[in-house]
Amino acid sequence: MNTVELIRKKRNGLPLSKSEIQFLINSYVKNKIPDYQFSAFLMAVYFRGMDETEQSALIDAMINSGKIVDLKKISGVKIDKHSTGGVGDKTSLIIAPIAAAAGVKVPMISGRGLGHSGGTLDKLESIPGFRTDLTLSEFKGVLKKCGAVLIGQTKEIAPADKLIYALRDVTATVESIPLITGSIMSKKIAEGIDGIVLDVKTGSGAFMSNEKDAVKLAHSLIRTAKSFDKKVIAFITDMNQPLGNYIGNWFEVYESIKVLQGENVEDLLELSLNLAGAMLYLGNKVGSIEEGKEISLELIKNGKAFEKFVEIVKYQHGNLKFIYNPDQYPKSKFSEKILSPQKGYLSSINNYEIGIAALELGAGRRTKDDKIDPKSGIIFYPKIGNQIGKGDVIAEVFSDHKTKIEIARNKILDSLTFSSEKIKKQKLIKKIIT
Amino acid sequence: MNTVELIRKKRNGLPLSKSEIQFLINSYVKNKIPDYQFSAFLMAVYFRGMDETEQSALIDAMINSGKIVDLKKISGVKIDKHSTGGVGDKTSLIIAPIAAAAGVKVPMISGRGLGHSGGTLDKLESIPGFRTDLTLSEFKGVLKKCGAVLIGQTKEIAPADKLIYALRDVTATVESIPLITGSIMSKKIAEGIDGIVLDVKTGSGAFMSNEKDAVKLAHSLIRTAKSFDKKVIAFITDMNQPLGNYIGNWFEVYESIKVLQGENVEDLLELSLNLAGAMLYLGNKVGSIEEGKEISLELIKNGKAFEKFVEIVKYQHGNLKFIYNPDQYPKSKFSEKILSPQKGYLSSINNYEIGIAALELGAGRRTKDDKIDPKSGIIFYPKIGNQIGKGDVIAEVFSDHKTKIEIARNKILDSLTFSSEKIKKQKLIKKIIT
Repeated sequence: MNTVELIRKKRNGLPLSKSEIQFLINSYVKNKIPDYQFSAFLMAVYFRGMDETEQSALIDAMINSGKIVDLKKISGVKIDKHSTGGVGDKTSLIIAPIAAAAGVKVPMISGRGLGHSGGTLDKLESIPGFRTDLTLSEFKGVLKKCGAVLIGQTKEIAPADKLIYALRDVTATVESIPLITGSIMSKKIAEGIDGIVLDVKTGSGAFMSNEKDAVKLAHSLIRTAKSFDKKVIAFITDMNQPLGNYIGNWFEVYESIKVLQGENVEDLLELSLNLAGAMLYLGNKVGSIEEGKEISLELIKNGKAFEKFVEIVKYQHGNLKFIYNPDQYPKSKFSEKILSPQKGYLSSINNYEIGIAALELGAGRRTKDDKIDPKSGIIFYPKIGNQIGKGDVIAEVFSDHKTKIEIARNKILDSLTFSSEKIKKQKLIKKIIT
Repeated sequence: MNTVELIRKKRNGLPLSKSEIQFLINSYVKNKIPDYQFSAFLMAVYFRGMDETEQSALIDAMINSGKIVDLKKISGVKIDKHSTGGVGDKTSLIIAPIAAAAGVKVPMISGRGLGHSGGTLDKLESIPGFRTDLTLSEFKGVLKKCGAVLIGQTKEIAPADKLIYALRDVTATVESIPLITGSIMSKKIAEGIDGIVLDVKTGSGAFMSNEKDAVKLAHSLIRTAKSFDKKVIAFITDMNQPLGNYIGNWFEVYESIKVLQGENVEDLLELSLNLAGAMLYLGNKVGSIEEGKEISLELIKNGKAFEKFVEIVKYQHGNLKFIYNPDQYPKSKFSEKILSPQKGYLSSINNYEIGIAALELGAGRRTKDDKIDPKSGIIFYPKIGNQIGKGDVIAEVFSDHKTKIEIARNKILDSLTFSSEKIKKQKLIKKIIT
């Protein structure tokens, strides 16, 4: 096959055959197609999309670029959750232990933060000693014994995705539904799950800012999951403001511990119960998401969820000292309270900018080689619709670099708009699609 | 500036600023942007196009990647011609001497054949000794003394074009009006001309098969020429069948000599007189294209055009032996007459396939490293609308490789369709746009 002709075909809007897609992916993974041709192909896909046959051929080829993990020997239904990412989104840390405490098996392969959006791996690694780089056999062992395990993508699982994602990231071809679907679902299907709960974010802090696109992506993910006989539920949820109040890696572990210990962080708890409830439902532990939510809340109240969290940390070699005494975690050299410059109702937040402010403080990375400072971050207090007085504390920022404090303060203040009239609360869960 | 952000901006359909375009081109030429980012940018341009500001910034940046030839010290108006390429298109060899014989200065920088389309340089190099690789100072010297000079692109002129074209060729981003415009006009403007005659081909043997696209391209080229204060006339001409009867490098020199010596090869002569007429008009030698055509025909009849052709060949170190005795040129080892399998009116030709048949015989190259056999090619006799009897000779094919003869025969026969009803002659010159 001729690579240029295949790029031209896609460019002209003609569908590629299964074997043509296979040729492109396999040749790229084997380094037989140069980056400059593959990036032109990706851009053509960005503009032309993919039909169902192409999409499933893409995912097939990506899955088959590596190993498919066989979890059949581990009893129980294996359910994962995937979020498309956002600011302060720490639900994985809360719902993995809840679902495991309910008897669902949770094999979770997560990513790192990039840009404004945090990553579960970085959060977990803020716990001293916590290992996210388990081998596949360790991964299976922890899953079997503990019921939940959270690791990073290994070399064996969908290596095509790692290569393709790195190229998409530097060629402005990330925001493509068939490519996002391929990236997410190839990894999830290769990790051996029976079902998946999807949290597709929409709003100023999400990759899909527009709700219509988020719904489109959800349908594409659902279609793919079903075509591989995986159970699936998708939530479309709001990312127009941080989820919970804490942003930054240890900060998010801290807030998760608080929620697992019964603290009522409204939006974070609500979403966590919904996602965990859906995991219990897909895991055949309950008859409805609603029932799953009740059981989940019960598992928080009776301490079983927090106990499971402790167990996960222990199995993955994390130090329990700060889990039991989170307030003893090292503090940033500098911090500052940000006061409201005016009174009024908080009417909107540019949540992307809040994520970037956290990145500036040290919580994120601009390039893959940047180092993260786990203790840096933001505590962001108000929610859209809250009434705020002049001089009220809106947020606190934490960093080891004094200059970064100022940058973050300005970003946060610039990201807010106020209204003199009452503002409706944001709806957190916009849609549930099955 | 951030390259990914610029690609994303273009991808989203937002216009890039002059300095953003400059940054992209300059950085790419200096090897500071990798091929894989630039190819994604090119594909985004393919889909989004460019507005006038972007287009002129692109051409500016491409021109300024190299030298602008200063021809001011050479007296006379300097007029070039550019054809978008096709099968049997040898008009440059005919009109450069005609225009120079009329006193117009003709600094012509031409290209090589690629794919189904021939290239002026390859044709000229079929003349033993003919040098197309003159230095810029030799180029100016010949132009001054002889009035016409035909060379290949030098390293000094628009080096950005060479780099970008090579990348477009392997990433399916050739067929983009702003990129084609940039490629053609950057070279032409950098070569120091005062005006240009454009021959934009349309039909099955052209890069723009569709007339609407050809007209769009012509308007884009004209707009650009005018923005650089260059005089310009564009012809939209038919490429649904070979121009003249000879296809192949020496074959085309041969037919050009015949026309310059007064032979009436209808379509080829008609187009040559039009293009030369327009060159004379832009060169201020006549008051109209019509008058220019008359003078051009006169210069053929009185032998001055052929004399100038001989002079060009001599100045560029070509051996005159075969110019004076073209029938003594070496012959291919094998040849075959192709007979019509049926009777009827020739109703259409897949002219692209005729070009590919010539390539197969040895007249063209599939990749830039392929060697050309200058004596190979096709003599193709009928024109669309001609009545043909069963067994009539349609074409003769020439090659040193017997197997190629068969491939070419099949390609040629497959490219023809016949009709039992009378067919209208094709209109050669479809539009003249100024």
